[in-house]
Amino acid sequence: MKPTRITSWHISCGSDTERSLRESIFSIANGYIGTRGFRPDERGKHAAWRSTFISGFYEYIRPGITDLVNQPDFSAMALRLNGEDTESMHVFDFTQSLDMSCGLLEWSFFLESRDGLRTKIKMEKFISMANRHIAALRISVMPVNWSGSLYLETGIDASVQNLPISDNQLHNNIEFVQMWNIPEIKPIDGGAVLTAKTFPSHRQVTMAYVLNADENAALTTDDYSVTSVLETTLKCGTCWQAEKLVAVACFRDGDSENIARSELELIRHESFDALLDRSKKAWGRLWETSDVVLEGDETWQGGVRYIIFQLLQAAPRHDPHASIGARGLTHGRYKGCYFWDTEIYMLPMFTMTQPEIAKNLLLYRYNTLPDAVKSAKNFSAKGARYSWMASDTGFEQCETWDTGCCEIHVTADIAFAFGKYTASTGDDQFLCCYGTELYIQTARYWVDRFNYSAKEDRYHLLFVKGPDEYCGVTSNDFYTVSMARQNLRLAIDAVSEMKQRWPEEWQDLSSRLSFNDNEIAVWQNIIDKSVLTFDEKRGLWLQDVTFEYMEPLDIKKEKDGDKPLYLRIGYDRLQRYQVLKQPAVLMYMALCPEDFSKDEIETAWNYYEPKTLHDSTLSFGIHALVASRLGKTPEAVRYFEKSLFLDLFDLMNNTGHEGIHMASLGASWQALIFGFGGLSHDGEYFKVVSRLPEQIHAMRYRFFFKGHPYEAEIKQGDDPIIRELT
Amino acid sequence: MKPTRITSWHISCGSDTERSLRESIFSIANGYIGTRGFRPDERGKHAAWRSTFISGFYEYIRPGITDLVNQPDFSAMALRLNGEDTESMHVFDFTQSLDMSCGLLEWSFFLESRDGLRTKIKMEKFISMANRHIAALRISVMPVNWSGSLYLETGIDASVQNLPISDNQLHNNIEFVQMWNIPEIKPIDGGAVLTAKTFPSHRQVTMAYVLNADENAALTTDDYSVTSVLETTLKCGTCWQAEKLVAVACFRDGDSENIARSELELIRHESFDALLDRSKKAWGRLWETSDVVLEGDETWQGGVRYIIFQLLQAAPRHDPHASIGARGLTHGRYKGCYFWDTEIYMLPMFTMTQPEIAKNLLLYRYNTLPDAVKSAKNFSAKGARYSWMASDTGFEQCETWDTGCCEIHVTADIAFAFGKYTASTGDDQFLCCYGTELYIQTARYWVDRFNYSAKEDRYHLLFVKGPDEYCGVTSNDFYTVSMARQNLRLAIDAVSEMKQRWPEEWQDLSSRLSFNDNEIAVWQNIIDKSVLTFDEKRGLWLQDVTFEYMEPLDIKKEKDGDKPLYLRIGYDRLQRYQVLKQPAVLMYMALCPEDFSKDEIETAWNYYEPKTLHDSTLSFGIHALVASRLGKTPEAVRYFEKSLFLDLFDLMNNTGHEGIHMASLGASWQALIFGFGGLSHDGEYFKVVSRLPEQIHAMRYRFFFKGHPYEAEIKQGDDPIIRELT
Repeated sequence: MKPTRITSWHISCGSDTERSLRESIFSIANGYIGTRGFRPDERGKHAAWRSTFISGFYEYIRPGITDLVNQPDFSAMALRLNGEDTESMHVFDFTQSLDMSCGLLEWSFFLESRDGLRTKIKMEKFISMANRHIAALRISVMPVNWSGSLYLETGIDASVQNLPISDNQLHNNIEFVQMWNIPEIKPIDGGAVLTAKTFPSHRQVTMAYVLNADENAALTTDDYSVTSVLETTLKCGTCWQAEKLVAVACFRDGDSENIARSELELIRHESFDALLDRSKKAWGRLWETSDVVLEGDETWQGGVRYIIFQLLQAAPRHDPHASIGARGLTHGRYKGCYFWDTEIYMLPMFTMTQPEIAKNLLLYRYNTLPDAVKSAKNFSAKGARYSWMASDTGFEQCETWDTGCCEIHVTADIAFAFGKYTASTGDDQFLCCYGTELYIQTARYWVDRFNYSAKEDRYHLLFVKGPDEYCGVTSNDFYTVSMARQNLRLAIDAVSEMKQRWPEEWQDLSSRLSFNDNEIAVWQNIIDKSVLTFDEKRGLWLQDVTFEYMEPLDIKKEKDGDKPLYLRIGYDRLQRYQVLKQPAVLMYMALCPEDFSKDEIETAWNYYEPKTLHDSTLSFGIHALVASRLGKTPEAVRYFEKSLFLDLFDLMNNTGHEGIHMASLGASWQALIFGFGGLSHDGEYFKVVSRLPEQIHAMRYRFFFKGHPYEAEIKQGDDPIIRELT
Repeated sequence: MKPTRITSWHISCGSDTERSLRESIFSIANGYIGTRGFRPDERGKHAAWRSTFISGFYEYIRPGITDLVNQPDFSAMALRLNGEDTESMHVFDFTQSLDMSCGLLEWSFFLESRDGLRTKIKMEKFISMANRHIAALRISVMPVNWSGSLYLETGIDASVQNLPISDNQLHNNIEFVQMWNIPEIKPIDGGAVLTAKTFPSHRQVTMAYVLNADENAALTTDDYSVTSVLETTLKCGTCWQAEKLVAVACFRDGDSENIARSELELIRHESFDALLDRSKKAWGRLWETSDVVLEGDETWQGGVRYIIFQLLQAAPRHDPHASIGARGLTHGRYKGCYFWDTEIYMLPMFTMTQPEIAKNLLLYRYNTLPDAVKSAKNFSAKGARYSWMASDTGFEQCETWDTGCCEIHVTADIAFAFGKYTASTGDDQFLCCYGTELYIQTARYWVDRFNYSAKEDRYHLLFVKGPDEYCGVTSNDFYTVSMARQNLRLAIDAVSEMKQRWPEEWQDLSSRLSFNDNEIAVWQNIIDKSVLTFDEKRGLWLQDVTFEYMEPLDIKKEKDGDKPLYLRIGYDRLQRYQVLKQPAVLMYMALCPEDFSKDEIETAWNYYEPKTLHDSTLSFGIHALVASRLGKTPEAVRYFEKSLFLDLFDLMNNTGHEGIHMASLGASWQALIFGFGGLSHDGEYFKVVSRLPEQIHAMRYRFFFKGHPYEAEIKQGDDPIIRELT
């Protein structure tokens, strides 16, 4: 078991081993700035691991391909006690902990020098949820058995680098990229302002800071950094403190230097505690609607709060031109790109509990619709084709041919999320202003992407890759065809609704899109005549046209714990085994259970679940959800625990070097609320049923439906109670 | 029409425009050294275009991926007449010509200076076919209307770079790579020796030269080059000459410095003419068996000699660890890699007319069999899997997923070429020592690569890409399945023959390969139960399982001249049109016409030929061959001319910037000899029939069969005459 301790509002770790895992787990963010949870005075193996990110701040590393930029570091410090660097001192009684109620990260430990001098240290840090530009650190130092000198260096360090990570999971990263030009540094009273620009696009960031302590610090600079150097004398048994306040702004905000300076000016005389209090209030407002209260198991309660906490802090609330990367702001994995993970895995929590954030995330897709139209053109297709991996533009960031070219369901996934958002929020204006246009343009892509066979009067979807990425490029993939049909249906319904309810807006839109009413008939045709394979005898929906030609594999024999099988079996071989990396038919059934009889879902479960390797972290939560709905509660609990504790207990052995798996968090939430918590809706009415496992004695969660807030309370053995809140 | 003039033994060009095209067409080589045909005193836009290659000399440009190294340049010179650089002078009466009987390349032209001083220049160069280490240049300068100074600089220049070319045809090359470390330079009497090593593997080349002239030259060096500087006074109307003799050796030969020095020492006092004479004799021996004499059309005659000339000079005759790249030694395109092009397109000419060279080329594949076994392991497959692109090792150099991972027919292609070689040469020792092992190991790969469907008792080949690269990744591709069956048959036959004829060797081999007699039954099973799709009603062999689901395309409307359609239509769209890039079913029918009735071939022709875009240079010659056999002589002639003059007339507009298309040369030869010249054999007897088009009044060619030399003479209207030569 990993050393993480979980209580209802706190995550903590009582050992300073497993550094990279702690750095991931204790990542903190406010949807704008994010930093990994590295101990400030541990200056790290290399500058690419000491990561600080800004949402949506990408830069090109080669033509067309961006990386999420590793920002200048404002957290690091060098600390010398009686002349000895703390980084090399013996550490004991170490605790790193996170208070999820307010996002406060804390390191508390004792140091012992070579000469036996012992010192109690506390370091605290938060990134303000009240003001996205602000972060603060506090250091407390108390000599236990000595008096003598303290030397502290801290400032802003732009000598960080990027380590762009190939989307080919078998490639090693070998190349560091220097993204920052030599910054401009200006001293200010008590601190400094550093403004740096990236190469090649001159994208600018400014970080301004003050170091507040009783003593004055001297300022030193070198090419890439500015540092406040403070020296003082410590008295045995007396606690010394300093506070560092930081303001961050970037080109995405406007004049970054002006903004960072003003934001710092506003708070420079405030205390760490006062600022934290304001951030805590902002967190409180988020928790008010997003918290899920569980009775029964404190570890579950803390784990559930952790997934909500991580999702909330990853979501850009201020900026409809950014989304949530596959690892949020916790790691540069996948070059920080946005996948279907956002719309299909993470979005439901936001749609149900923070609809304004959900809307923002969807607007990112709407705002990149012009790029998706251009992307379609690049693929010689009509309409809009969303990219498998996107960054600050909508253009394809995936460099692996089979996924980038063939895993096209993402376009339908986005339309689906738009549909779910409108259906549950009742935000019709959104449909009118954004949704319809997106549905029409994406529907046009599907028209182009299906091949009509005149001989059969059927539409085939050739050469696609479904969500089970272990299957080769195949045809008529169940998930993709089904989701494309949903996309087409949404388009048909939206056009009809526009015509009735917003005739003027429809006039504008249809003329702008050169819409032709004949298009609707083609959409309906594809819905009716596209090909899914159903085995009547077994009552089984087949994943695609090739699945049953493949060789069976004894998973138990081949799979070694939780290690992905692709590390042991080459892809060309793996794609021809009857195994799944993650759910495909069951994935669609998880999203649209209403399309199937319980028997169909059960048959699919019995067929696919034993063949699924769960080599993607996107797998567990979805299986938990489906199992819960099927009444397979023990399986649901088993899968839920895998999903819930995936990062906290490092179940895939990659949380440290890959960051927090955002989609898995979202899937855990769906399993909890849509599965155990039994929430569902058909776009008109919602419903709550109780499917609590024995681990949960009672559960309380809030959600919005059609703009109204509700609270569901479910107790073992009782009927759910729903309250409309006012 | 391009400016190339073709006579029976000469290729010439009367204009100094189209520089890069001329550089490709006039590439000369001896199977070891190759240089592009750049005019020595034109120093080029950049050092990556001034290309000199050594067969098999690759270096890593990133982990696992090599580039054919651009060698130090021994050809370049700077020439100043009366103080003015010739590079900037006005050129007139320019002719660049190639004598194919001896490989002599010549530039002859007049220069006019700014002041009206006119000078006649001749530059000559050859790379010796008599001694692979030797090349020679001669420069002749005659002032027409002036007397005055001449200044000549020439030496060895290692300041060249590589420009590695992505195998993704849509990527631009953007990155120059410096491969050479600072060389070691040693002066010798009349010249110098330059030894350079590549980064990172320290692969060494040595070039030693002397500049022979009446005057003494001074030697100057800088970091990367050594230069002889010669100054003299020219007299109006008198021709001045200098000769430069060069010896080249590299790490593949052993101690390169010692070898280059010794080889130069042996010839340093010889004249250009004497060395050329020796090379011409060596060329004469090659022409003796490889020449094809045509009566009727001198352009065809010269064109045919050109394809033979280019194939002969590209083939490494000295080294069973190298093969012929897709562009020979004429360009770094495809990083100089070896493809199926060698075995399927080029090899027949060698097998029939230079069996020793053919054997050498096949030995390259045998020698990389251990790499193919490791590659199979990397793909979690058994046996041996040859790479789509190979260089000095057999490891995959292709970085494009769909071809590198899925275009697996190359393994069967290599086995097929082994079979053809043994069948026509009767070289049974080759079967015993090399062939059987390769057949068994490759057969084992196929066993692993086919998927057995117990339900149907059939073997499916899933997720492959056939030779028609415009089709997506599909299943049961006709060409690949058919060639795999051939591979398996070769293995079955070889095992049976080994058991009968070489029981001892078989004992050794079968124990070394842990061969089990049960394997044979599986091979036979796959031959019998693998899936090809035949439409009984139409009598049509279908390309794969998806072809008929695709959308038809009006090629005439879409295709713009000879420009490949992938430049206009994105791949994802293109792969779903019913069009072919190059032959697939017809390709197999071209290789194994005996497997089909004439009706089947004709039906396939009528179906596929109109759908074929010929966007690969591998297409024309094969269509010419099939058309000729079908008696469609006008079509055959049309395709043959496209193939024959593809490079000389730059029909694809890419010969200049991509080099000579070696596979197309080989296909032209097959169309000529197997098509018009009517040669075929069944492994026991050969047969010659006449299918001469009207353009050929008579034709004479030689070939070997079962070790005996024959000459075929075919005249319009007469029966072919076959002579066994002694």
